[in-house]
Amino acid sequence: MTTDPTSPASRAPEDGGSVVISVDAMGGDRGPSVVVAGMAESARKNPEIRFVVHGDEAQLRRLIERRKELSGRCDIRHMAGVITMEDKPSQIVRKGNGTSMWSAIESVKTGEAGAAVSCGNTGALMALSMLRLRKLPGVNRPAIACLWPSKNPGGFNIMLDVGADIRADAPDLLQYALMGASYARNGMDIAEPRVGLLNVGTEEHKGRAELKQANELITAAAETGNFQYVGFVEGGDLPSSRVDVIVTDGFTGNIALKTGEGTAKLVGEFLREAFANSIMSKFAALLAMTSLKRLQKRIDPRRVNGGIFLGLNGTVVKSHGSADATGVSAAIKLAFQLTKSGFQDRLAARVAQSAATLPSGTETGGIAS
Amino acid sequence: MTTDPTSPASRAPEDGGSVVISVDAMGGDRGPSVVVAGMAESARKNPEIRFVVHGDEAQLRRLIERRKELSGRCDIRHMAGVITMEDKPSQIVRKGNGTSMWSAIESVKTGEAGAAVSCGNTGALMALSMLRLRKLPGVNRPAIACLWPSKNPGGFNIMLDVGADIRADAPDLLQYALMGASYARNGMDIAEPRVGLLNVGTEEHKGRAELKQANELITAAAETGNFQYVGFVEGGDLPSSRVDVIVTDGFTGNIALKTGEGTAKLVGEFLREAFANSIMSKFAALLAMTSLKRLQKRIDPRRVNGGIFLGLNGTVVKSHGSADATGVSAAIKLAFQLTKSGFQDRLAARVAQSAATLPSGTETGGIAS
Repeated sequence: MTTDPTSPASRAPEDGGSVVISVDAMGGDRGPSVVVAGMAESARKNPEIRFVVHGDEAQLRRLIERRKELSGRCDIRHMAGVITMEDKPSQIVRKGNGTSMWSAIESVKTGEAGAAVSCGNTGALMALSMLRLRKLPGVNRPAIACLWPSKNPGGFNIMLDVGADIRADAPDLLQYALMGASYARNGMDIAEPRVGLLNVGTEEHKGRAELKQANELITAAAETGNFQYVGFVEGGDLPSSRVDVIVTDGFTGNIALKTGEGTAKLVGEFLREAFANSIMSKFAALLAMTSLKRLQKRIDPRRVNGGIFLGLNGTVVKSHGSADATGVSAAIKLAFQLTKSGFQDRLAARVAQSAATLPSGTETGGIAS
Repeated sequence: MTTDPTSPASRAPEDGGSVVISVDAMGGDRGPSVVVAGMAESARKNPEIRFVVHGDEAQLRRLIERRKELSGRCDIRHMAGVITMEDKPSQIVRKGNGTSMWSAIESVKTGEAGAAVSCGNTGALMALSMLRLRKLPGVNRPAIACLWPSKNPGGFNIMLDVGADIRADAPDLLQYALMGASYARNGMDIAEPRVGLLNVGTEEHKGRAELKQANELITAAAETGNFQYVGFVEGGDLPSSRVDVIVTDGFTGNIALKTGEGTAKLVGEFLREAFANSIMSKFAALLAMTSLKRLQKRIDPRRVNGGIFLGLNGTVVKSHGSADATGVSAAIKLAFQLTKSGFQDRLAARVAQSAATLPSGTETGGIAS
């Protein structure tokens, strides 16, 4: 997103106009019809939203014409190329130009859209986003942040990085803390987010060397930043109400994310089996239908759909490849909210400010172990 | 455990005698009464079991005399010292001698017991176990293995390391694969265990350098070992039925273990809240009581209680610090089963054999990054 105030499409609040979201309609596991259905769901709920949609024009026009909610609210950009789930990172930079994903990111770069949403290949989306949007000044490694069901009033905690980069040095972890706190303020309306650093124990002597260094850097940054630092947290704290933002490297975060998803899925399957076990329990399941549906909603991965890329000159939201219309709509809602809050500019300002105040000898990337 | 065949106490199967388990009765969060209650539960179910119990003699004698199942089946070793949950690793080696934990390990070292069980401080138990039992020849880093609820017929998968050491090089990960497979064969009766290596993706190019090296080492070892290697697995595969043993470093394993536990607990809490929501759902919960109890049993952490220390000259089982009698009994059962199967000798033989056949240039610990 450009910082040029004359680009009205991407900014809504001040000028009373609409918020424009750029959507990569191709590349998801379920094809463009599900993406368009998700756009329609968002459009129905949200009169302020408009779209730039990227993909096969004929196909998209047919799908969009069927949805009256989308009438007059979509610009279609024809792109013949599609990046598949199988494309390797090395191929993507070469063949990226001319694809719907590339074009969706380009709309954010030119400022015609406030944020981009894609259900496509995560590695490709990050590679192209870095190539076209470039890293924010002061950021060494961008991160992917996800939402995690929690006992907090808002229902979710933020965890980052969940897979943008498998490494993270102490200054990277500090950047993640700042970016995660900024996301919590702007995306979740938490005035003073509580930030924790993921480790194998809460005592200060525990863990790897870079975690001890990061612990010191984040402690120092919290004093001037608008966040509280709660220190080390453990895997069991991810859903806890003592923290809003959990900071970790992309390797650990990816394992934790998938472990949590897998565990919730397993318990759900065991629950279904338990209720299918006897006539009595089937009857009970019928009686408890409303309660069980409420439970399902609380742990439904579609509601938390949308990993957000942080640390770039523009906002990109990654939706699950297998997202259905509800999932796509959740990702679009997140992109809308972040655009409307002016998140990108605030994040950039926060990161720039902190980079300037880092203690000497802690140049970003300079403490490499 | 000694390999001296004249130590009858620790070996049961051949001579028809009993199996002796060494129990550290102090140091758990709930005190010795819960530990003795767990011993009584095991003794009631298992006529072959006997105990050497370590701790405050007067207190233990009183507790044991109240349990007729334990009559004539316990030797008490009086130890005045107790290692607390707060003791730092550096203090433990100094003050360890004379504590119940030290003495419990000593019984395994002398061969009077087949395995030791403790609910105490994990770091202390590992430090003292390494000090007294020493590492198995060919093992660089011992590991802690835990059981993970899964969709496999046995109901559990094995994951290691979950916290013995925060680092692991490629040869360490190979050792974990061998030790985990041996544990699966002897502790869970799986003739040809399937082993997976935890990573952020299943493609061969993914992940850290040491994971790519370990992938090659384990592939080569599977050819001669009695296990199948399924390659890289992800966090979502931990409860899956495509693998029996999951290999990872202690940092990642600890985070995954606690994340999984935390997620299961969260879903359980949400479930209770859902059922407490209305008269109708409370009635439904009543009707479904049997099914819900079955579900609770499947995901009950007490049933999987018992992290096992692998790679030492003796078997040590770590029970949860907050374990109740059922949890302590589960840990004792695991110690019993491993002793009875002759696990320790088989594991030692397996590790020694593999150390001898490692490709040149891959000395244990020699590929350090």
